[in-house]
Amino acid sequence: MTQADSKWMMLALEIAERGAGYVSPNPMVGCVIVSAEGEKIGQGYHERYGQAHAEQNAVDSVVAPDLLEGATVYVTLEPCAHHGKTPPCCEMLAELPIRRVVVAMEDPTPQVAGKGIAYLRERGINVEVGLLEDKAKRLNEFFLHYHTFNRPFVTLKMAQTLDGYIAAPDGNSEWISGVEARTMVHHWRSRYDAVMIGRNTALLDNPRLTVRHVEGRQPRRIVIDGPLDLPEELNLFTDQYEEKTIRLTHNKEKYRNEADPMLSMLQSDYFRGKTLLIDEKEGHTDLGKALDELGGLSITSILVEAGQNLASALLRERLVDKVECFIAPKILGGGTRSVMGVGINHMDEVLDFRDVEWQQVGKDLLFSGYF
Amino acid sequence: MTQADSKWMMLALEIAERGAGYVSPNPMVGCVIVSAEGEKIGQGYHERYGQAHAEQNAVDSVVAPDLLEGATVYVTLEPCAHHGKTPPCCEMLAELPIRRVVVAMEDPTPQVAGKGIAYLRERGINVEVGLLEDKAKRLNEFFLHYHTFNRPFVTLKMAQTLDGYIAAPDGNSEWISGVEARTMVHHWRSRYDAVMIGRNTALLDNPRLTVRHVEGRQPRRIVIDGPLDLPEELNLFTDQYEEKTIRLTHNKEKYRNEADPMLSMLQSDYFRGKTLLIDEKEGHTDLGKALDELGGLSITSILVEAGQNLASALLRERLVDKVECFIAPKILGGGTRSVMGVGINHMDEVLDFRDVEWQQVGKDLLFSGYF
Ligand SMILES: NC(=O)c1ccc[n+]([C@@H]2O[C@H](COP(=O)([O-])OP(=O)(O)OC[C@H]3O[C@@H](n4cnc5c(N)ncnc54)[C@H](OP(=O)(O)O)[C@@H]3O)[C@@H](O)[C@H]2O)c1
Ligand SMILES: NC(=O)c1ccc[n+]([C@@H]2O[C@H](COP(=O)([O-])OP(=O)(O)OC[C@H]3O[C@@H](n4cnc5c(N)ncnc54)[C@H](OP(=O)(O)O)[C@@H]3O)[C@@H](O)[C@H]2O)c1
Repeated sequence: MTQADSKWMMLALEIAERGAGYVSPNPMVGCVIVSAEGEKIGQGYHERYGQAHAEQNAVDSVVAPDLLEGATVYVTLEPCAHHGKTPPCCEMLAELPIRRVVVAMEDPTPQVAGKGIAYLRERGINVEVGLLEDKAKRLNEFFLHYHTFNRPFVTLKMAQTLDGYIAAPDGNSEWISGVEARTMVHHWRSRYDAVMIGRNTALLDNPRLTVRHVEGRQPRRIVIDGPLDLPEELNLFTDQYEEKTIRLTHNKEKYRNEADPMLSMLQSDYFRGKTLLIDEKEGHTDLGKALDELGGLSITSILVEAGQNLASALLRERLVDKVECFIAPKILGGGTRSVMGVGINHMDEVLDFRDVEWQQVGKDLLFSGYF
Repeated sequence: MTQADSKWMMLALEIAERGAGYVSPNPMVGCVIVSAEGEKIGQGYHERYGQAHAEQNAVDSVVAPDLLEGATVYVTLEPCAHHGKTPPCCEMLAELPIRRVVVAMEDPTPQVAGKGIAYLRERGINVEVGLLEDKAKRLNEFFLHYHTFNRPFVTLKMAQTLDGYIAAPDGNSEWISGVEARTMVHHWRSRYDAVMIGRNTALLDNPRLTVRHVEGRQPRRIVIDGPLDLPEELNLFTDQYEEKTIRLTHNKEKYRNEADPMLSMLQSDYFRGKTLLIDEKEGHTDLGKALDELGGLSITSILVEAGQNLASALLRERLVDKVECFIAPKILGGGTRSVMGVGINHMDEVLDFRDVEWQQVGKDLLFSGYF
């Protein structure tokens, strides 16, 4: 494949990303069409869940059908082969007078899994697969993880001082990280299907977990409330996005038996969001089971904005896929630790990361790493 | 001043740095001489304490004296004006047929402090001051600090996991940081006048604190041993650099009165190094007084390779000028913290840094910041 091929696929990947947050649980897909003469004649991406696929949008953007004669279609994911909310893209493409389709990666979902590529090849179209595959996989890491494990991809976000404290001894944590870091968190919120917090954070900080510093889609909001007794007046339960809040409890009695009409309404999906009953584990909500349940709600990705207890519990249970940790150039020398108690005793049990990146964000440093 | 001026001064600064570790308590100085035609005709730097100054070395490197006609001398520090171990450089330069001297910064020491510049100007030489002054000050930060405060510049070096632990719960700390970070520490050791540790580190790790992974000058080694009872067979007291070890104690009785000939010999400067008696403070060696004493020994800079207690004590007493902290992409979730107990309760007391830099070193991240 040529340098021009890479350039066009890179563009397709960039375009695909515009669907971030909006297409889940579908993958983000971008498509660029280049004429036989090497000119870009069309582009498109999957914009909203349930709406047209990238390929269709790209084809629709071509001003004259004869431009497609001998053209190349660059698409970041194998064209679909199944009748879903839209007709199969491979059939649509095979009708066109195009010569070649370049695909960044196969679609791993069983309904496609090579069938789209095979269909095109059978119809005499030259299909090449694997260009910028790593980038395509990274772009759709939530989607790929979700379809492999049937659980959301979990990112643990932390904001700590250089010496690893997330709050001063007096409990205050405003502000460890700078405004640039906080803006970045809002950007993330717009890309993850859901943001999750624990009950202490809900009680103490009464956060809204909405996207405000940037433009973007509002996420679902998950609050772990084992005893099911968080005050009903919290922002999460009363603001304009209240239906986006999912409450997790392990309190069987209160969830099922209470005659209180308020509480029976809590079980309905549309009053103040949804409340899920999860098994208990060692006195707390079972986090692994919680992820299974949330996967069942088509939540493919969760950004956890955790305090020490929730962060440590998730790490201890090995439920974290990625850590995003802001480090502020400050020393507190006391207070609440970012992580404490993950069951490690010896150095050889240390939790190691792969694909680590360090990046400066304002005055802070952002660590990103995968487990 | 022109771009060429900056280029030559930058070269002079680079050359100056070759004296790092060897010229203390003198400053590092570099000098470049450029002919009237704009060609470099000489260069030199201050190589060893007590030996020729940079200007003399640069002049000596010029192959023919007539090349100096109308030349420009670039020097990173004001030429000296006092008769020390060498004759004053300003007099030597004033004898030459040069036209212009460009100086990065004034020498702040009272014996010079503008006198060198004034001398040259009186003799009709065009002197310009302040080119790349920030870089020149950074280059000689130890020297400048020492001459301002009569105390060594103190850098606290730490190596921790992402979550701020310097040892696992079982006490083991090998290895948190990678080989590149450890090599960098050896490089630093060759540039600081002394390396300092506390008695627990001496006891538990029995380190040598020598320069091994890189070429370079061996530093003095300072070990705080309040009770004066560290075992005599430690590497610091028995290896080939034993005379470079300085022991600090607050144990008056043992230091003064003990009849044991071993101990009275400890007080001599050349048997197993030197032992200094320091005042006690809250049961430990008074760290501020220790720095004063060490300043008296012409130690201008100390790299502290501290454990939690020493690091926290130095920070609590606000005796740290710079922190170099390696962060390894690992999570321990328990063990010894890098810093604990610096007397901060509220977020607005947080220790803030200035001139922060983040830099990747192997797989680790190096934070550098000044107080
Ligand atoms: N600087 C920052 O980045 C940052 C971010 C967020 C929060 N914070 C601060 O962190 C503090 C709250 O932190 P926190 O950790 O106490 O509360 P938390 O993050 O709210 O975590 C507690 C939650 O974890 C759940 N959990 C599940 N398994 C657990 C287990 N094995 N052990 C313990 N909890 C388990 C609990 O479930 P159950 O309800 O079922 O018990 C509970 O809902 C607040 O002060 C907040 O300001 C700081
Ligand atoms: N990962 C790393 O970067 C790293 C680096 C070095 C060490 N370590 C580990 O750290 C451990 C040792 O750490 P540590 O902190 O216990 O020992 P330490 O660093 O040896 O510090 C104790 C020393 O601090 C002095 N000190 C002065 N003022 C003090 C005060 N107010 N409070 C407490 N001490 C004061 C003590 O003086 P007196 O003697 O007068 O009491 C003592 O000599 C070892 O396990 C070592 O392996 C890790």
